[in-house]
This record gives sequence, structure tokens and C-alpha cells, in this order.
Amino acid sequence: LARYKAILAYDGTGFYGFQRQAKKVLHSQRTVQRVIEEALQCLGWQGRSILAAGRTDTGVHASGQVIAFDLEWAHPPERLQAALNASLPADVAVQAVQEVALDFHPRFDAKARRYCYRLFCQPVRDPLRERYAWRVWPGLDLQRMQEAATYLPGSHDFAAFGSSPRAGSSTVRNVLRAGWQEEGDGLCFEILANAFLFRMVRRLVGFQVTIGRGELTPEALADRLEDGRAALVKNTAPPQGLNLVEVMY
Amino acid sequence: LARYKAILAYDGTGFYGFQRQAKKVLHSQRTVQRVIEEALQCLGWQGRSILAAGRTDTGVHASGQVIAFDLEWAHPPERLQAALNASLPADVAVQAVQEVALDFHPRFDAKARRYCYRLFCQPVRDPLRERYAWRVWPGLDLQRMQEAATYLPGSHDFAAFGSSPRAGSSTVRNVLRAGWQEEGDGLCFEILANAFLFRMVRRLVGFQVTIGRGELTPEALADRLEDGRAALVKNTAPPQGLNLVEVMY
Repeated sequence: LARYKAILAYDGTGFYGFQRQAKKVLHSQRTVQRVIEEALQCLGWQGRSILAAGRTDTGVHASGQVIAFDLEWAHPPERLQAALNASLPADVAVQAVQEVALDFHPRFDAKARRYCYRLFCQPVRDPLRERYAWRVWPGLDLQRMQEAATYLPGSHDFAAFGSSPRAGSSTVRNVLRAGWQEEGDGLCFEILANAFLFRMVRRLVGFQVTIGRGELTPEALADRLEDGRAALVKNTAPPQGLNLVEVMY
Repeated sequence: LARYKAILAYDGTGFYGFQRQAKKVLHSQRTVQRVIEEALQCLGWQGRSILAAGRTDTGVHASGQVIAFDLEWAHPPERLQAALNASLPADVAVQAVQEVALDFHPRFDAKARRYCYRLFCQPVRDPLRERYAWRVWPGLDLQRMQEAATYLPGSHDFAAFGSSPRAGSSTVRNVLRAGWQEEGDGLCFEILANAFLFRMVRRLVGFQVTIGRGELTPEALADRLEDGRAALVKNTAPPQGLNLVEVMY
């Protein structure tokens, strides 16, 4: 039995998020974890649950989710990758597989995660873009959003932007990099942090879009970071713009 | 009653092509024409059939398909666009509407059509790209494909690359521009012609990919254009890479 680390890409549109649902009533829902575990079972995997770096919400995409599992496998890791990809559905694919130490944990060992959120400003619906980006109208003031993002790097209490996965634990997170870039005629918000609260990126994007609309000043973001007991902000950006790009170890 | 011209964008993945199926057995299949006509019927349209610039195949996308229909509409065209978009599903949207002459015909009046075909070279499946591009592996020699494309402009008999929509009629088409461009880490084949034969772009792409693989010389494309009685080439590229970008009048 060896432990394998795998990098996953998936189109989140057809999934009820990453995590297999525990509640019986939800057991029939299609999740990324479930289709991966089913593919592993075809290869003789008998574990109870795979490990993952992060749980992405319903509709959120990933190009660099990281999982780990223990498996008896007599061939090279490349053959394992090919075997998994052969049985996985079209909306999930294993990008890479390697053997790792038996105590490797994709969540606890992760040093940082990188997310990208894509949006574009256009008055009319665009069926060829809205699967992977949020359409926003009227247009946004990019400079105001870029200014707001400069307040993000550093250690802050992000209580206003998400709850902790474990009730009562810290809501302080360390942002290593954050910023808005133009990408074609759209915008991309990239953020790198040691870890994230629930829906933190989507709330940060929603809040900055409010700033880009001129309804709040860029400093309003700084104010929320100072105030550890602030209520959760509204305006959560929709899931389809979000992509878990990379997990670093 | 006035005639309206509308520009349509759609994600072809969920459609059995553009054209409403006449055969009874296929009548339940979802086509772009059918959802547009249903949306028009909600606005009081009683026509038998809308007109369209071109019939895209199952799985082919469009960002610039053009249709026309006659409708009694008391408000400005922008209101008609908004009303249609409100009742159309997420994978189709009207990008623009204008009133045109009563004898405007989107197919017969079209001077030229522009298509783009996207592909990328990568050994592993990529769920976030393969909805709108063809994944090809091993890699391709772009220079050979660019050289092949230089033979395309001009008037040629494209019998080897498609059949005419009307049996027995001419297979000569006039290509105004054709070429391969790098686009990110993928490739885009753009072609502008007065009109196209059935599956002509997908066969041209499939044939050029064979050239890019080194299995045929660029001159093999020129040979097929000279030979009006050549058999249809094999290697039709799959539909998801193709996009009808623009119809010119």
C-alpha cells in the first residue's frame, strides 16, 4: 500500500461541490469526491474516504485541486493516472499523479492555495463565456478595485468574509498576494493565501465589485478587515467565476 | 408586421444542431431553431419557420449566427431583444436585434461567413477547455499547417471537403482569408469564405491536423483542391472546436 498525490481538474457545473455528502437524503447527489472514489474502486481501492486540499462549493471549478489516497498499485504512477482518466467522466481529469510519503496530507500540509475569479462586463448574456465567468453590468471601475485589493495582503481577521470550517476557530488568514488583472476584455482576481474561510473569495469579489460600482470606497474593504466582529458581507459572487488553480506544498 | 434581423450566440453542446428537425421521430430533439421559435411564440409570433444564415451541426457553437423573422412588435428593437433573452435558456442569447427590409434573407443576402476552429495540444484531458476546443496529441507542427492554409484563399472546388447543401449543385467556394494563429497555448484556425459546404471547416481542420502531424505534406491540400472529383477526406475534426463567429452582409 502506497500513498498517491493527484492533481485534479474539473468543471464544477455538473457537481454538487467537491465533498461527498454524508446525509442520507443527499447521498444520490453527484460530487467530485464521489466520482473519484468510484473510479478508484474500479482499481481495487477499498479506503473509506480520499483526502483533499479543499472543498470547493457547488459550481466552483478547479484546475489544481489536490487529493491523496492509499492504494496497492503494481505499475508506475503514469499508468495509474491513465487508468483513472479512462474511467472518470469528461468533466473531471487527473492532471498528474505521484507517490508521496505515507503521512502526506493534502489539506494540513498545504502551505498556500491560489484561486482565480473571472468576470466580464457586458449588458447582454453570453452563453459561450458564462460557464466560467460572472457577467457584471453596468461596467466597473477597475482602478477602485485594484486599490481595494492592495489592502488584502498580510494577516487579517476575515470574519466579515467567511466563517471558519470549524465553528469557533480562528478567522485570521494570511494573504500572500491579491490583485485584479485585465484578461482579454474581462477581469481576473487572483488571490494567494495560506488558507481560506468558507466562501471567502466569492465574498471578497462581491464586495470589491460593489466598490467597482462606486457604491463603497476602496477603504471600506480595509475597515472590514480591522473589525473582527463585523457581520458577514452580502453580495457573494456566484460560483461559476471561481477556480481553485493551485495548492502549494 | 416588420422583419427583424437578430444576431445569436449559443453554446452548441446541448443542441442537436441549429435546424428544427422535420422528421417526426426527431421532433422531440432540442435544436436552436426550436428554442428560438418557442421564445418568439411567447411574443405572439405565428410564422412557420425563422430564417437563418447557416445550419450549424450538433455540438457546433456560434457567437454570430444571424436569423430573421417577421413579427408585429409595437416597441423598440432593444425591448424585443430583452424580451427574447428573458425567455431563452442560458445557452442561447440574442446579441443584437434590428429592423430590416421585408425582403432581407439571412442566408441568400450573406456576402461572407467567418468561422474559427480552436484546438490545443496536450496529453491529458482538460475538463475546463474541451467544451470549446479540440484536444490533440501528440503536438503539431504549426508551420506546416500555416503553409497548408496558404493554399486556401481563392476560388476552388472543395468537393473533397464537403457536399453541397443541395444535391448536384456546385462545390466551388471562394475563400477570402484562411490561416492558423497561436492563441494562448492553443491554436485557432480562422476562415472567411462566401459560403461553406457541409462540414467543410471541420474537414479542412482535420486534414490540416494530419499535415501538422507530418503524415501528409502541405502540398497535399493543394492537390485536393485541384481535383474536383476527389473522394471526401476522412479525419473530420470534432464539432466542439468550431464557432460561427460572424456573417457579413
